[in-house]
Amino acid sequence: MSEIVTAGLLVIGDEILSGRTKDKNIGFIAEYLANIAIDLKEVRVIGDEETEIVAALDALRSRYTYVFTTGGIGPTHDDITADSVARAFGVGIDHHPGVVARFRERFTGQDLNEARLRMARIPDGAELIQSATILAPGFMLGNVIVMAGVPSIMQAMMDIVAPKLKSGVKMLSESIRANAREGDIGGPLREIALAHPETIIGSYPFLDENQKPNTNLVVRSRDQASLTAAMDAVKAMVERLKA
Amino acid sequence: MSEIVTAGLLVIGDEILSGRTKDKNIGFIAEYLANIAIDLKEVRVIGDEETEIVAALDALRSRYTYVFTTGGIGPTHDDITADSVARAFGVGIDHHPGVVARFRERFTGQDLNEARLRMARIPDGAELIQSATILAPGFMLGNVIVMAGVPSIMQAMMDIVAPKLKSGVKMLSESIRANAREGDIGGPLREIALAHPETIIGSYPFLDENQKPNTNLVVRSRDQASLTAAMDAVKAMVERLKA
Repeated sequence: MSEIVTAGLLVIGDEILSGRTKDKNIGFIAEYLANIAIDLKEVRVIGDEETEIVAALDALRSRYTYVFTTGGIGPTHDDITADSVARAFGVGIDHHPGVVARFRERFTGQDLNEARLRMARIPDGAELIQSATILAPGFMLGNVIVMAGVPSIMQAMMDIVAPKLKSGVKMLSESIRANAREGDIGGPLREIALAHPETIIGSYPFLDENQKPNTNLVVRSRDQASLTAAMDAVKAMVERLKA
Repeated sequence: MSEIVTAGLLVIGDEILSGRTKDKNIGFIAEYLANIAIDLKEVRVIGDEETEIVAALDALRSRYTYVFTTGGIGPTHDDITADSVARAFGVGIDHHPGVVARFRERFTGQDLNEARLRMARIPDGAELIQSATILAPGFMLGNVIVMAGVPSIMQAMMDIVAPKLKSGVKMLSESIRANAREGDIGGPLREIALAHPETIIGSYPFLDENQKPNTNLVVRSRDQASLTAAMDAVKAMVERLKA
């Protein structure tokens, strides 16, 4: 449990890059992973092109403990995520007998067409991510977790896969509203950050309810004592600003 | 004007990866670039670490016509975008006399502190992106365009920089609601896609107002005649489904 567990996220879909669809998955997954003590280190959004997907998978899976993907597992010609994952891992891909059997229960006659059967294509050796309410399953192969692009289905898949993942030492976090402009605290805040190397201190400007420039300060650390020490220093700085 | 102009987007900030802040810039920039005929090909979200930023900048700027960045140009210690861009280009960075002069008009005495002066650090040779309402300027160096992370400021910067960019042949787009489940049209849609290689055909499932699975089909092409031909084939398919 003392390990740091990291993740990359690969969002696959022309519709995000063209601006037609606004992504809702990055924010959800970022928050979800933070809550289960997995550090999201990088997100990439790329289009529906196999060579691009394979290259991104290879870059991310060699680097992070886990790689999550969203999108491209539906029944149409532009859904190429499963094939791309198989190619990245150099394994075969075929219709998964268990998934086909479930489709046969659900679809009859011409409804069980080639397009729907496409959703049963699973790389060899992958573990399915499925439930009674999920039609096209996701899967996990090696350290890559393939999920749907539709937010409600992706979220159901996260709940299924999360208990199977190892989690690291949770990143603890505390925040305080500075009631000051960011430019007024940059100097002392930098000194606090330098004096507390076991913490990550973030500064986030916003317009407050009086439309005045204000700043939220966030201290993060895996160690509670370090977090408390840095937060105490930040609080003292904020008090000094009031004076 | 017959060139294809591409772009990468680099979103910089721990707060996005931790889930604390939900990004609002990717969708805006994707749509904005589509409207000015620049193809967004890739987005990366990374944290506030200089080596990560430099590596991502180098990967994207060698590959795409333009690279846009958001975030990390404020007055605090975690704002390291300008320094990272200077390092990626191997140029110096210093307080920009013009920006410092503007700050001197705006801030007096102790308000013009080291933290605020940090926002005047601009890599050598960069062109400023600024206006009367923008405090910390963005800048363009080579093919890299550095913008604020705060959406309203980023959007103002896009409006300033957009007229200076070359734009390519606009990607035309038409869409139609199939009134069919995605799995029912995957087969014929694949044939249409194969028969119209000058187009990109996307299929996007959604739940319609009756909570029934439905599908939006989007045909995109740079050539109007190709777009029309493919869209005619898609419309004929949708008509056949009604019958």
